Order: sequence, then C-alpha cells, then structure tokens
Amino acid sequence: MRTQVAIIGAGPAGLLLAWLLRRQGIAAVVLERRSREYCERRVRAGVLEQGTVDTLAEAGVGARLKAEGQVHHGIELRFGGAGHRIAFEELVPGRGITVYGQQEIVKDLIKANLEAGVDLRFEIDDVAIGDMADHPHLTFGGERLDCDFIAGCDGFHGVSRPAIPPGAIRVFEKTYPFAWLGILANVRPSTRELIYSASERGFALHSMRSDEVSRFYLQVPPQTRPEDWAEDEIWAELKARHETVPDFELNTQGEITSVDVAAMRSFVAEPMRHGRLLLAGDAAHIVPPTGAKGLNLAVADIRVLARSLTDYYRHGREDLLDRYSEICLRRVWRAQHFSWWMTSLLHTSDHATLYDRRLQRADLDYVVSSRAQATTLAENYVGLPFSADESG
Amino acid sequence: MRTQVAIIGAGPAGLLLAWLLRRQGIAAVVLERRSREYCERRVRAGVLEQGTVDTLAEAGVGARLKAEGQVHHGIELRFGGAGHRIAFEELVPGRGITVYGQQEIVKDLIKANLEAGVDLRFEIDDVAIGDMADHPHLTFGGERLDCDFIAGCDGFHGVSRPAIPPGAIRVFEKTYPFAWLGILANVRPSTRELIYSASERGFALHSMRSDEVSRFYLQVPPQTRPEDWAEDEIWAELKARHETVPDFELNTQGEITSVDVAAMRSFVAEPMRHGRLLLAGDAAHIVPPTGAKGLNLAVADIRVLARSLTDYYRHGREDLLDRYSEICLRRVWRAQHFSWWMTSLLHTSDHATLYDRRLQRADLDYVVSSRAQATTLAENYVGLPFSADESG
Repeated sequence: MRTQVAIIGAGPAGLLLAWLLRRQGIAAVVLERRSREYCERRVRAGVLEQGTVDTLAEAGVGARLKAEGQVHHGIELRFGGAGHRIAFEELVPGRGITVYGQQEIVKDLIKANLEAGVDLRFEIDDVAIGDMADHPHLTFGGERLDCDFIAGCDGFHGVSRPAIPPGAIRVFEKTYPFAWLGILANVRPSTRELIYSASERGFALHSMRSDEVSRFYLQVPPQTRPEDWAEDEIWAELKARHETVPDFELNTQGEITSVDVAAMRSFVAEPMRHGRLLLAGDAAHIVPPTGAKGLNLAVADIRVLARSLTDYYRHGREDLLDRYSEICLRRVWRAQHFSWWMTSLLHTSDHATLYDRRLQRADLDYVVSSRAQATTLAENYVGLPFSADESG
Repeated sequence: MRTQVAIIGAGPAGLLLAWLLRRQGIAAVVLERRSREYCERRVRAGVLEQGTVDTLAEAGVGARLKAEGQVHHGIELRFGGAGHRIAFEELVPGRGITVYGQQEIVKDLIKANLEAGVDLRFEIDDVAIGDMADHPHLTFGGERLDCDFIAGCDGFHGVSRPAIPPGAIRVFEKTYPFAWLGILANVRPSTRELIYSASERGFALHSMRSDEVSRFYLQVPPQTRPEDWAEDEIWAELKARHETVPDFELNTQGEITSVDVAAMRSFVAEPMRHGRLLLAGDAAHIVPPTGAKGLNLAVADIRVLARSLTDYYRHGREDLLDRYSEICLRRVWRAQHFSWWMTSLLHTSDHATLYDRRLQRADLDYVVSSRAQATTLAENYVGLPFSADESG
C-alpha cells in the first residue's frame, strides 16, 4: 500500500493536516489507535485563538464553529478579593477568542475528511515506523504503508517521537508540583467570560462549553486521581475558590458528567523533524493548560506543515520543509514562556517562599494596573499574529 | 539634647529627608557613622529615574545634577549576537533617565544642609536607639538625643531595623547565586547609552559616569573578592562579554580606579514603621542592582516620609504617617518584581536547566519583538509615575 503522506493520529493536528492536503490534491492516510467515537467524545481544550478560528474558516471547516462557538472579548483575573477584567477589545482591538470544544473540531474534521474520501482508519493499535530515511514507511496489522513523508501527530505518548534516535533529538522539559482536576458539568455558567481565580486555596478556572455546560478546573496535588474527589467536595472547593468577591455566587445546580486529571508539564523536542518524519502538536511539545495554548500551537504547526508539503508537491521546493522546525519553534517557545508565566502567576506552590508569594502578588497587581503588562497578557492569550513564514 | 526628627544615616535618604524637613521649618539632627569624605566618595548607583530628578529639582538641589547629569532616552539589550535598543522616547514619551553618581547627590545634599545650618554629625559610630515608643530618643557618645521621631536611613547593615523587636516585623528575602564586580575606570565610554549584555559567559553591564569615566559590572560567583580579579582579566572578560556584535570594540585605554563587589539580594521588611521609628531606603528594602532601583526607591520613600512629617507638624495630622509603610510598599514591591525580572532575564545560572535557558531566551526575544513587553521594561526603568499618595 502506498500514499504520499502517512499521518499517525486523528486528533485535531492529524485531521487538519489530512484535510488541508486533500484540498491541495495530496493523498494521505490517517491511522488512529482509538475508535472514532472515542476521538469525538474526548474532552480537551476549548479556547481557540483568533488565528485558529481563521485557519479553520479559511479551510472551509468553520461553519459550525462560527454558528455555535462563543466569541469572548475578555477574561477576568480574580485575586485579593476583587475581579479585574482584561479587556481584549481595548488592548488588542479586533482580536478575541472563541470557545468551542476540541471534540467539536474533531467531529467537524472527521466528517469533512470522510465526505471527501480521505482514508481515515480507526482502532489501529500497532502502528510502527518502519523507516524515516530513504524508504519511509509504516507497518500495522501485518500491512506496510509506503509513503514520502510521515507526519507524527500522535500526541505526547505516541510512537512517533520515541522512534527518533535519542542522539538526534534534544528534549527540554519542566514539571510543575500540581495538576488540574477538570470537571465538565451540565450547569449554566455563572459567568459570561472565563474567570481565572488565584485563590490562596489554589488556582481555579471557570470556563464553559455552551449556555448549558460549564467546564471547571481546580489546582490539585500532582498524584490526584479523579475518584479522589466526591461531587460535593468539588462543588464546595469551586465555591471556596471562586466566591471571593462580593455578589458572586456559583451555580451548582446540575450534573457533573466527567472528571479528569491533567498533569502540568512543559516539554519541547528539537528539532521537530528527523529525515522524512515530521512531528506536530503534542508529539513535539506540551504546555501547561493555563495559557490555553496546546491546541492552538498544534493548528499553527499544521499550517506550516501543510504549506511546506504543498510547496514540495506542487513546486518541487524543499526550502520551507527544511525550515519547518525552526519556523514552528519560534511560536512554540513564545507559547512556552507565556504558559509558564500564566502558570506561575496564578498557582499556589508549597515550594514558594514568603518572598515568592509577595512577588507573585506584585506581578498580579502589575497586570491589572499597567496597560502595557495587560497587553502582553492579551496579545498572547488571543494569539500573536502569524508571521510571514506562517501565513503563506 | 532635643530635636524633632533624629535621622540615622547620611546617605541620600537621610540627607534628603533632613533637607526637605528644613525647608518646612522642621528641626532634624543627622548622625552618620562614617566621615564626610567617605560618604562623598563612596561609589554607588548612578541611574536616576525621572521622578528622582524631579524630586531633587523641586527641592532646590538639582542645579548641578541638571548641569552635569547625562539624560538618556534608551538602553541597549545585547544578546544572541545582536543589539536591540529599548527606545524610551517612543515607548514612554517625555520620560528618561539621568546618569549622575550617587556620591554627587550626597555632595550636593551635604552642602545644602550645612549651608542651611542643619546639624549633620559624622563619625558617630555608637548610635543606639534608646526608645522608639513613648519617649523616643537615641544615645551616642554618652549623649542622649530626645526627639519626636527617629528616621532609620542607615542602610541594610545599620542599627535601626535590628532594633525593632523580631515579632513586630516580617522579613521577605531572596538571594541570587551570583554577585556583581563593579569597576570604575578613567576610560572614555564605548557607548552613549547603557549596554546590558546577556552573554553566555555571564551578564555584563556597560555604564558611565561622565564623558571620561566608565562604570562596568561583571556577573561573578557570590564569594568573589575584588582582589581575585587582575586588571587584564577584567578587561579581557569585559571584551569577551560585550564584543559579541559586529563593529563594537570596547575602549580599554585608561586606569581602573576602583573595584568592588556587590551581593545580589532581594529583601523587604514589613511594616516600615514601628512606633516612632520610621525606616526608609536600604534599611527597609534591598533590590539587586540590575534594575537600578535602590537609590530611586529611597528617594520615593523620603518623598512620602517628608510629606507625612510635614502633615504632622503643620496640620497635626497623623493619617499619612499611619499609611507611610503601606504607601511605600506598593512601589517597593513593584520594584522588587521588576528587579527580579531584569536579574532573571539577563544572568546565567548554574542552577538553570536547559529548559530554563530556552525560556530565558524566549523572554529576551519577546522584549525586543513586542512593543507591549518593551513598554513594561521602559516604564519600570524610567520609573512609574508617583501616585496621588506619593505626590502631595
């Protein structure tokens, strides 16, 4: 069996790549370990940068996103007994975020790909990279898939990155001494915009998915399991961390439908290419979720990768492919820094000294009192504009 | 013996306070451990914020500063083989810094105070605080100086802060795993504006005092003594750390006249008042010198303190005195955060992981590519405007 680009992983990265290549007449096969149903139901990120929304719209897969996504023009930082709005419409005019669940993007992309006849294969759990040099190919289920390129879009725990010889890749990482407990609940959101609460009990985030569904996060110890938290404990803690300002009451009338735990980790593998294998999204880099950058970085990678492959097949040019890693890593490191900063700004840590805690408070006070510092938060949060290399 | 305000320390803080009180007809005595000559020659800071310059000018002690000080409208950040100017005139129009040595301010203030008949006493090396509650007084040389208030302007190692009962004061601190070697040299500066070089060999700063005198700093290990560095080693290291861009050559023709070592420490004592004792400047807080904030914070403290005491004596009001610590600490913590950030941004550390080093580079890249982030540096560097509480 043969294709042009073999894609490992049917998350947003792999599916968007397959779709963008299809629109350019480039053949791809997508191999996914999980079932289609699993992929479409997996609860993940939900905050889309302006550039992510634009990318999906330009690619012709933004209709439902546009109809159902909620556009936000600010977020609230809540600390020290007061709420402070970071007003995107003033600080970064014309740019906002859109709240739309990752699994909805996945549904839209699976549908588009299948309707266009793209070869998506689910429940393929034994993919291996046979060669990523002169004769790139994958093997699975006793078959061999020959290709020109392999796109490793299989996430942090996938097979792609570990297939690269250790000496050919450099890894940068940091772990944080806490995790996030993620809660999905059929509860009317208590707020129109996201609330980032830097409480002395720990960080809490109030997000949402729709007018009827709220998404909550609680900073918890790193070894926490979802079953460690009873429903009433979750509600009590959410109330304690968010009800720190006058006249705010958290809606708690409704069912919790999902509880998960996300580790807080920063990770970058360099370069993002080895021979004919190209890594994209979580397979190459992870950020803590505080800055809502993970999904958006994956989409930015895919923008560049799709352009690079298009240049190769349509014009026989490899220069963009050769610069793929370098181009992506600029945005990746900016997002790494922003995500680290947001995480440091908002979480409590047992390792923090009294001095560190005051410094953190000084940083928070500065964000809400300096237009310049508020703008740094806003411009990163809505997403820095695509560079010429990323635009095409 | 009796006065209204007994001031310990004839550094810029103590001398400015005595002078501002004198202009309001409030009596003060200043007791200084060192000789006048020592105070006037001690090489210290030299970068004055706009507000510091304005304060001295308004107080009528800014004539020589205005004539001899060099006004700068930018600094250079040098890293990764390139120099990047942070242009104050674009980012914070109308605000700049003035380069004028601290010992020159001390000379100007000693002269003004003596001419106005203020009681300055040098070489008083046994000052002790007798009482700071109901009957405030100092003792020294067998004498007793009764007063209404004691101003502790005697620096980090002075007697004032340690006189406060340990339970009445809270201390916040951080030390850094490096120090600064300070070099004063009769060498024509190689640059018009300060150069902050974040070299892989360690941080280096090229500053100046006049058209003929350069001031250099080198990041060194914390236990360094001035005699550990030979002259030729100093010049070689300054060249290696600064000559990282094309067409830049360091002038090395001239004599090194002074070498000192400064520890890098962050420290805050809260509150800055205990009974009738009021701490100001380094006696209450220390910043690493990277942000050039130490002297400027001392002047800001004294502005508030002089106003508070004037309110007390002229209007019988203590409300500003009661808020003295709270008002000063807002600026202190802002400066603590800025100084920590500048220090983290520019120094190398053996404790840094590979990830930390990339994050630092991402932060540097951001400062020189985002107008918002460059503005945060500029607005802190030239000094945030005085608040209503600080202005009067």
